[in-house]
Amino acid sequence: MRALYWDGAVLRLDSAYPSPRGDDRTALVKVHLAGICSTDLQIFRGYMGFKGVPGHEFVGKVSDGPRELLGRRVVGEINFACGQCDYCARGLGRHCPQRKVMGILGADGAFADCVAVPIANLHLVPDRVSDEAAVFAEPLAAAFEILEQVEINPGDQVLILGDGKLASLCAQVLRLASAHITLVGKHPEKLQRIRQWGIRTALLSDWDGKNFDLVVDATGSAAGFALAMKATRPRGTLVLKTTIAAEHQAALAPLVINEIRVVGSRCGPFAPALDALKEQTVSVAPLVEQIYPLSQGIEAVDHAGKPGAGKILLRP
Amino acid sequence: MRALYWDGAVLRLDSAYPSPRGDDRTALVKVHLAGICSTDLQIFRGYMGFKGVPGHEFVGKVSDGPRELLGRRVVGEINFACGQCDYCARGLGRHCPQRKVMGILGADGAFADCVAVPIANLHLVPDRVSDEAAVFAEPLAAAFEILEQVEINPGDQVLILGDGKLASLCAQVLRLASAHITLVGKHPEKLQRIRQWGIRTALLSDWDGKNFDLVVDATGSAAGFALAMKATRPRGTLVLKTTIAAEHQAALAPLVINEIRVVGSRCGPFAPALDALKEQTVSVAPLVEQIYPLSQGIEAVDHAGKPGAGKILLRP
Repeated sequence: MRALYWDGAVLRLDSAYPSPRGDDRTALVKVHLAGICSTDLQIFRGYMGFKGVPGHEFVGKVSDGPRELLGRRVVGEINFACGQCDYCARGLGRHCPQRKVMGILGADGAFADCVAVPIANLHLVPDRVSDEAAVFAEPLAAAFEILEQVEINPGDQVLILGDGKLASLCAQVLRLASAHITLVGKHPEKLQRIRQWGIRTALLSDWDGKNFDLVVDATGSAAGFALAMKATRPRGTLVLKTTIAAEHQAALAPLVINEIRVVGSRCGPFAPALDALKEQTVSVAPLVEQIYPLSQGIEAVDHAGKPGAGKILLRP
Repeated sequence: MRALYWDGAVLRLDSAYPSPRGDDRTALVKVHLAGICSTDLQIFRGYMGFKGVPGHEFVGKVSDGPRELLGRRVVGEINFACGQCDYCARGLGRHCPQRKVMGILGADGAFADCVAVPIANLHLVPDRVSDEAAVFAEPLAAAFEILEQVEINPGDQVLILGDGKLASLCAQVLRLASAHITLVGKHPEKLQRIRQWGIRTALLSDWDGKNFDLVVDATGSAAGFALAMKATRPRGTLVLKTTIAAEHQAALAPLVINEIRVVGSRCGPFAPALDALKEQTVSVAPLVEQIYPLSQGIEAVDHAGKPGAGKILLRP
């Protein structure tokens, strides 16, 4: 099959990559669409030391697996848990120490014609959710993770730092919990789109906000954390979504003085994400910038890496 | 009166410093003992840009104030809140944005014959608590703050990083909540003392622990945070007690990947601290290294700044 392969130094299109195999716990999924995520771009800078086929946002059709799934459209959770350890027993399979992570750690991902996914990780896509929407299930689940981790009151002042894809999803998800969402970013054209969803926005260069109850750093940059600390009120909560290979440098004294709570936040629950796509309480279509055929995968990755790029999708 | 005065560059003993005044909201306290804290040493490196009389750990006797307090032994909370703002109304006076902080921000402290303290901040010292113990009320309250902020289960594996004064207090306080306390430090003689309290210890150079449910960084050093992150289990909690002027440099990706919760923790409640001193559930006497007269305050500060020094007290 065709696959984009990252050997630790170079990404290339391999037209004869070995097809994955299924077994009694693993289904094969024919990929319809796969999304290029900032984490993929970080991988190409050395993050996680991954080698293999990247790609962890996908929607596809089961081509080999249990009868009841054959031919059904699915999305999949990216953490492949062992199912045996204490974490798995406590329902924390996303933190299983033995886990593989699709396209990130020890398991090939979805920038290919086919991907192997544990059956336990698959979720059926409702009929009224298009492929172009379903491919957002994984990052949207990551946004819903915030609601799992932090209690939000309807009157809370919530700030999202960043105007990229994840920031846009976080803003829309948190709007389901609070009436007071502000998103601050660097790109006027993105802010304009976000305002059309009824979310208050501000341009970073004009902005000096403070005292937010909840701040989400979804900047994807090392500078975001210090900015987020400054904007969080005493005893407030800072959700850190940014994962980067680089080191942060910041004086952490304000965190202690203001007794701020920082919550690292990664992957989330697929069920509310698929429900939001089905009920259209969250809008994802405007986030798509371009769909490339898999054969132009290298160009697609280059495009995704351009500053301010929207979501780039691959269609095998 | 005599006072140690920090002018932003030099600490000197002033033998004719203006005596503070009381008013209907402020009592005067004749200082019996004052403790030199790491925060004071940080102030002498520029922390908070403070100028004035430092010192925020004290015990003394009320020399001017309401009749019912006159001549009584007291300790005092260090945050002087405005009493009017939203934070104060919500019982968060320790985070009042208009607050002064004794010996740290806008208010003279206790390295002097007398100190002025808002009456609302004073706590009576039980008769059976000696001055040498009562002077620990403030740092002990800071250790009890952890119990206010974090829910601890008796079976939780708790790690304290650091073997200084605050670390020793945190270990003893958290032992009241969990049976599984480990303290890791650099000083064999301090670890030996801490083991006598029935707390498991390890020497940092021999140690590579992981997967603690709760980790407290009380190292007072910039390096503590990365170590603490590494030792915290996925979805675990890291309490940050270290306040330093310097910047931390750390890759925060593990915080996101493991969804660690970081809780900045500063000043705490005096009532449980005084109760622990009265009931002797916490031992503080062994932490005292030397008591200096106020007239030798400069030498005392030098002594406190030596690596591995125990608690240095000043007696005016």
